[in-house]
Amino acid sequence: MLSKSFVVSAPGKVILHGEHAVVHGKVALAVALNLRTYLRMTLRNDGEVLIWLPNIGTKLCWKTSELQPLLAAFPADLTETQPPTLEQIEKLKEFASISSETTPSTHSLATVAFLYLYLSIVSKCRELRGMDVLVWSELPTGAGLGSSAAYSVCLAGALLSACGIIGYPLQEAQLLARWTDQELDLINKWAFRGEQVIHGNPSGVDNAVGTWGGALRYHSGKISSLKRVPTLRILLTNTKVPRSTKVLVAGVKDKILKFPAIMEPVLTSIDAISQECERVLETMAECPSDECYPLLEELIDINQHHLNVIGVGHPSLDRVCQVTAQHKLHSKLTGAGGGGCAITLLRPDTAPSIVEAASRDLGDCGFDCWETDIGAVGVSVHSPASLKADLLETLNAF
Amino acid sequence: MLSKSFVVSAPGKVILHGEHAVVHGKVALAVALNLRTYLRMTLRNDGEVLIWLPNIGTKLCWKTSELQPLLAAFPADLTETQPPTLEQIEKLKEFASISSETTPSTHSLATVAFLYLYLSIVSKCRELRGMDVLVWSELPTGAGLGSSAAYSVCLAGALLSACGIIGYPLQEAQLLARWTDQELDLINKWAFRGEQVIHGNPSGVDNAVGTWGGALRYHSGKISSLKRVPTLRILLTNTKVPRSTKVLVAGVKDKILKFPAIMEPVLTSIDAISQECERVLETMAECPSDECYPLLEELIDINQHHLNVIGVGHPSLDRVCQVTAQHKLHSKLTGAGGGGCAITLLRPDTAPSIVEAASRDLGDCGFDCWETDIGAVGVSVHSPASLKADLLETLNAF
Repeated sequence: MLSKSFVVSAPGKVILHGEHAVVHGKVALAVALNLRTYLRMTLRNDGEVLIWLPNIGTKLCWKTSELQPLLAAFPADLTETQPPTLEQIEKLKEFASISSETTPSTHSLATVAFLYLYLSIVSKCRELRGMDVLVWSELPTGAGLGSSAAYSVCLAGALLSACGIIGYPLQEAQLLARWTDQELDLINKWAFRGEQVIHGNPSGVDNAVGTWGGALRYHSGKISSLKRVPTLRILLTNTKVPRSTKVLVAGVKDKILKFPAIMEPVLTSIDAISQECERVLETMAECPSDECYPLLEELIDINQHHLNVIGVGHPSLDRVCQVTAQHKLHSKLTGAGGGGCAITLLRPDTAPSIVEAASRDLGDCGFDCWETDIGAVGVSVHSPASLKADLLETLNAF
Repeated sequence: MLSKSFVVSAPGKVILHGEHAVVHGKVALAVALNLRTYLRMTLRNDGEVLIWLPNIGTKLCWKTSELQPLLAAFPADLTETQPPTLEQIEKLKEFASISSETTPSTHSLATVAFLYLYLSIVSKCRELRGMDVLVWSELPTGAGLGSSAAYSVCLAGALLSACGIIGYPLQEAQLLARWTDQELDLINKWAFRGEQVIHGNPSGVDNAVGTWGGALRYHSGKISSLKRVPTLRILLTNTKVPRSTKVLVAGVKDKILKFPAIMEPVLTSIDAISQECERVLETMAECPSDECYPLLEELIDINQHHLNVIGVGHPSLDRVCQVTAQHKLHSKLTGAGGGGCAITLLRPDTAPSIVEAASRDLGDCGFDCWETDIGAVGVSVHSPASLKADLLETLNAF
């Protein structure tokens, strides 16, 4: 039964292998990152709608009566199959007094995405419901870790559940529950619409990872889940070096045009790395064995060299590789490169002292560093008892 | 006219691109390294044959009458088309009191190769000539820089010339002269026999580079000279980290068998690098332009990553790359890898202060470092006036 207040979470994502090559028709593997975005929804009977995003300092409140006129742009027969229209977005921006900046702020994008999903989904209830929506994330924004998708996935799951369009899966005494595949499919589709509001033309990978968790294969626009994947310990490092994905993607294209005979085989090799990694992950899930770790490490090292070859490396990323190599750990950039984030694989038996020392050394370089997992569970509903104390404290502080 | 005393030199070699890939049917580019081996031959009328190799402390002297009985194993119709026989080698070893060690010393190999070439070539004269042969090299031995081939090439050129089988090209007032292509071809063939004495089953690349100079393309056992190549300034660094070429070659093979779909494209990319580099070098030779240097640097960086991917990198080689990158210079390993030598490209306008600083930093790592050229002239005859003062002093010291 739906509680008055409930907590939903969705994971971030990292690209394990295939970043950039995927643009050129090769396979990429995206995996769920267990740095999560948490959404607490509390239903209200006073006709007020509050959205609090403490990470970015956003706190907005409207009366449902104020929101009612916006429904003109959100017809009752609107479904998840229809992409957001320019008219809808413009209306929402106008309502929220958001100017049409050239580069919209995270605040603007998050506000419009919330309003879009709220109006699209809640309009299917008898009436616009009042609610408090608090979203707090462990994910840094703008670091290519799928924070916007995790936000959209949480919103879609919570709103669809609050309106009874999908069920509320958590049974009493359960700590964590997931929706059915059919329900998850609907969450994913709505989350993709949220992503479209935020990004314009997203690939759909991030919201799929946030929804389904585990690992996904992305190839020529087609996304499919790997059947079973192990959970792998990693260090995630954010070098905080800013970069433009667009410029990096264009740079790779230029390199391919400049040296086609040299670069095309490198993309072919990256493709083979993704496929080999997929094979190793499925083997590990079926029959866990430490013997697979040297293979995963080797694939990471090879791909990191390839990513340097195609021109998306950066001295900060070389530094991550060097520092972690001193602790016999293997790292590669993840995502766009040119700075941004790197992942470092940890073995199940990597000693805490090694992880601490590596994290400290990375911190000494000025980088942010988290110990977390990949292959994490997708969007889930949590009982308060299942939340870590510090997270509960954070959520309750607002 | 042949002087009583004359000086011959031959260059060493480095692999510019394609090491290891060549074993798997790809193109390699070998270039002449202007660290040279010098041979001074002085004809004697007292029937004594002296061979001095100050680099390795070898000084041997025989009477031609002692050598005469060995001719039984070197029939008059012996030509450059016949490989050395086991019987010949055993006879020479016995004569020079060289035990059949499992790993023969440089001294043993150099002695047997000298005796082999002396007896094969000088037997074609009316009589065994007395001579002093002094060989001094700028090349370290056993570093994959073709020092044994430079030795064999110098010996073949000097012996063939001393016997009048080929001409003596240096005209009065000339500083440096080369033989005709036909004569060089004969030198190369005899030098290859010398290499066979030393290495058993050499590829023939090293003696070809020592003979012809410039740059050679090596592909599936076929060696061909590039028509014209520029001379390029480089730093040559010897990490002095010992390695086994055999073990490294086997390691690459294992990696290819382990990850064929990942590794085969890397070899294909290396092949394309060699071919692209060949194209750039020929363009530079026809129309010298500084615009080609960024291309050469990029090819060096890419190949260095690929060599790491196929498993022949080494922390000492990473160090060379890092240290030179700090001076905005580009480096790659050359030859077998796993230690050994690296080359660093210098532009024509790289300031002496930068070269000095980079050399000093490499020296501080414990490496040996030389500023030299690649694309150097092949085997040549020198007038004493053309020799650098310090070299002349070295030769005259013996």
